[in-house]
Amino acid sequence: MKQTTSDAALLGLALDRGDGEPLHVQLTQGLRERILTGRITPGAKLPSSRQFAAELGVSRVTIVTAIDQLVSEGYAEGRHGSGVYVSADLPEEVLQAAPVISEISLDDPLPPPAPMRPFQPAAPDLDLFPHAEWAKLMERVWRAPERRLLANADPLGWSPLRVAIARHLNQWRGINCSPHQIIVTSGAAEAIDLLARAVLKNGDRVFMEEPGYRILRRSLILAGLSPVPVAIDQHGFDIEHAQTVAADARAVVVTPSRQYPLGITMPLARRLELIGWARQTGGLIIEDDYDSEYRYQGRPLPAMMSLEEGVGQVIYVGSFSKVMWPSLRIGFMAVPQNLVTQIADVLRASAPRASLVVQPVLARFMEDGSFATHIRKMRRIYARRQESLIDAVSRHLDGLLIVEPAPAGMHLIADLSPSLAARMDDAEASRRAAEVGVTAMPLSLFFDGPATRQGLVLGYAGFEETAIDDAARKLRAALNA
Amino acid sequence: MKQTTSDAALLGLALDRGDGEPLHVQLTQGLRERILTGRITPGAKLPSSRQFAAELGVSRVTIVTAIDQLVSEGYAEGRHGSGVYVSADLPEEVLQAAPVISEISLDDPLPPPAPMRPFQPAAPDLDLFPHAEWAKLMERVWRAPERRLLANADPLGWSPLRVAIARHLNQWRGINCSPHQIIVTSGAAEAIDLLARAVLKNGDRVFMEEPGYRILRRSLILAGLSPVPVAIDQHGFDIEHAQTVAADARAVVVTPSRQYPLGITMPLARRLELIGWARQTGGLIIEDDYDSEYRYQGRPLPAMMSLEEGVGQVIYVGSFSKVMWPSLRIGFMAVPQNLVTQIADVLRASAPRASLVVQPVLARFMEDGSFATHIRKMRRIYARRQESLIDAVSRHLDGLLIVEPAPAGMHLIADLSPSLAARMDDAEASRRAAEVGVTAMPLSLFFDGPATRQGLVLGYAGFEETAIDDAARKLRAALNA
Repeated sequence: MKQTTSDAALLGLALDRGDGEPLHVQLTQGLRERILTGRITPGAKLPSSRQFAAELGVSRVTIVTAIDQLVSEGYAEGRHGSGVYVSADLPEEVLQAAPVISEISLDDPLPPPAPMRPFQPAAPDLDLFPHAEWAKLMERVWRAPERRLLANADPLGWSPLRVAIARHLNQWRGINCSPHQIIVTSGAAEAIDLLARAVLKNGDRVFMEEPGYRILRRSLILAGLSPVPVAIDQHGFDIEHAQTVAADARAVVVTPSRQYPLGITMPLARRLELIGWARQTGGLIIEDDYDSEYRYQGRPLPAMMSLEEGVGQVIYVGSFSKVMWPSLRIGFMAVPQNLVTQIADVLRASAPRASLVVQPVLARFMEDGSFATHIRKMRRIYARRQESLIDAVSRHLDGLLIVEPAPAGMHLIADLSPSLAARMDDAEASRRAAEVGVTAMPLSLFFDGPATRQGLVLGYAGFEETAIDDAARKLRAALNA
Repeated sequence: MKQTTSDAALLGLALDRGDGEPLHVQLTQGLRERILTGRITPGAKLPSSRQFAAELGVSRVTIVTAIDQLVSEGYAEGRHGSGVYVSADLPEEVLQAAPVISEISLDDPLPPPAPMRPFQPAAPDLDLFPHAEWAKLMERVWRAPERRLLANADPLGWSPLRVAIARHLNQWRGINCSPHQIIVTSGAAEAIDLLARAVLKNGDRVFMEEPGYRILRRSLILAGLSPVPVAIDQHGFDIEHAQTVAADARAVVVTPSRQYPLGITMPLARRLELIGWARQTGGLIIEDDYDSEYRYQGRPLPAMMSLEEGVGQVIYVGSFSKVMWPSLRIGFMAVPQNLVTQIADVLRASAPRASLVVQPVLARFMEDGSFATHIRKMRRIYARRQESLIDAVSRHLDGLLIVEPAPAGMHLIADLSPSLAARMDDAEASRRAAEVGVTAMPLSLFFDGPATRQGLVLGYAGFEETAIDDAARKLRAALNA
């Protein structure tokens, strides 16, 4: 049975005779807690044991025992002839027992994230990755790890991974760079951050393609840069046009291999013009090559970096999110020789973020050819899935959406047909799709300003052909409703 | 045998009859490369086949074959009746073969990082970690990973890890927070970055302890904040004194458990004053609890966060670098309920950096008790190593360095004796130590302004007792030289 005493005088101290804990222990705990939370202020005088005993209805022995305990713990001190005070300046030897609180609930503590579903863009197939092989490599690397994996690691990344990336870039993208120029990051956002700090200045204006990659735009802003959207034309980004929008931009982020999200490949002439701009103005070209591995026809145009030869102003930003999976959070930059030291200095100062647990495993996975094998396998599968999507659209969405085959990538842009566009915009179409369990991002979402084109961004890579067909049928019902 | 032709007219094109490659292939490659590198400008007219043939000393068939190939690849175009031009605006179908360069060297491509040696501070023993057990867990988690580990992951971190951290904080630090308040980061630098973006404003002044943790100071600056060093006294950071230095500071970074590097435990009274300041001014308290697990005597004082009850302005920043290893790059924050949404928004916008490859493995390692077992084991070992260091100093460095035992931590501060201080400062002592292969960071390095105390920071945790003794002997020789 609970007995409550005079709250005002004793700060709501409540002793419970049926609690099992001796009363003096309860009192010590109650007082300690009130001292710790500041409800009894440091230096305050405690009531006399007589007064305490009377107010709480317990014996003075109980009170004296409790207070002695607090004094021995250093929370209170007896001043000669004048009673007991809460310590004003507790010595560092006062070590308090941590109060153990009730068990933390494990029952679904946090809501699960949304499942991946068609037509989420930039989503690789997660079931077809050789997870067992990958897991075995992890075990092998980590059961007796090299000492330099654990401490004093190179902030630019694990050396063998940098070598493997340099070789991959050479074989797949025609880039001739040394492993010293490779910097392993936790993704494109960190790459932008590093460049903002090492090469650019706070507030620098940076051209961005419009439409473009929203997350990158936010990364620019968060890095203290000022993005300037520049409408692309049928050949992608045009530096001549861009200069009429902002003459003073210090950098540009482009997706020349395959414009995101429209899929345009920037022609060579445009690339050379862009390099000419960099040469003239000292501007920086940040080439975001987010999914160039998935090319189904022909070979990709050379990366900007392989064109620039000695200009020293092109940074190639690559990712493992599309070949491996998004939450791996490993990406890289290939930077000109002349910028390596500057960027390394910033990395050292700000602490590198890319996990060193993954890096040696990924290095082995690339070295033994598994990485390239996986790309080749998925390339065949994704090519078929693109065909499936085109089939499914023609079967189920004829008259509603218009898609064209693309020679590369993981998504297609479906334009709204004139009759559908007369009934709704792409945001409405996307909202209806979501209602029937289909992800169809509106193209307008990729614009910073007003959208000049309406469509749906349909990712096909991550989904089996039956799922693609099924989602297309659902989408028809949603758009016809 | 190599035959070089008229360089000026033909841009240094060299055909090699002994090369094995047909001459027209060599010519195509040579021209393509020069177009790609801009040495032949877009829109330029190519010489006639007759002129070309004469200058290169090859047949016109060779020339025509090569140029036809370039036209079919889209690099060049024939204009009716006026010859062949380099394309001014190449169509996107132009897909060029990536030039494969010579093999990238693997012979020690990058210099190895410096080895860990006594007395590096903040260095755990890397050999005593149960790597085999950890590696097996990795294999088990990753051979058939849960789908939500691969995509659409919660940016705040892997739920089971957040639960495990919340429970650990409760059991070890008396903090009563829900897993929803735990945010997994890639380390303290990311924590500072997130707080700078989510809670503070660019240019906000932030109190820092002087002496203090240099990397954190740089993180503050890189995050756009303005650190204000405040000299600590024998009780650590004093908010009353700090306010006389800067009345307008919006936040403070403190190490109340064990001041870094001096090892002072902030008394309860100071902690309560600091919470009072936060309550009054709306300021933020960032509590950096970097090695509180390693306490050898008594129990730690309650964390600031467990004291604040409802103020909602204390952020607890923790790390796994000291219990696991530094390059794991996993840390966390425990944030007040009212700040979770703001920080989550920034994380979503800027892309989270903590590896999701490690998080589920670490969660299991904590859940099955291995983490706590490892801490307990290392605590016994580190306590003994501290004694070894004290012994070694009294044996070998008597009259040169003065150390006092500490109830916690992974390093001791060795003050220079008056006679040594008369001969050199701590920077010189450190330089001499380095010459004999001993790391002994000078205390002055931890000051932003002039150092008010001279000493050496001697880490003992990561090193066996014989290595400690050996390093102490070397240090004596270096200091006596």
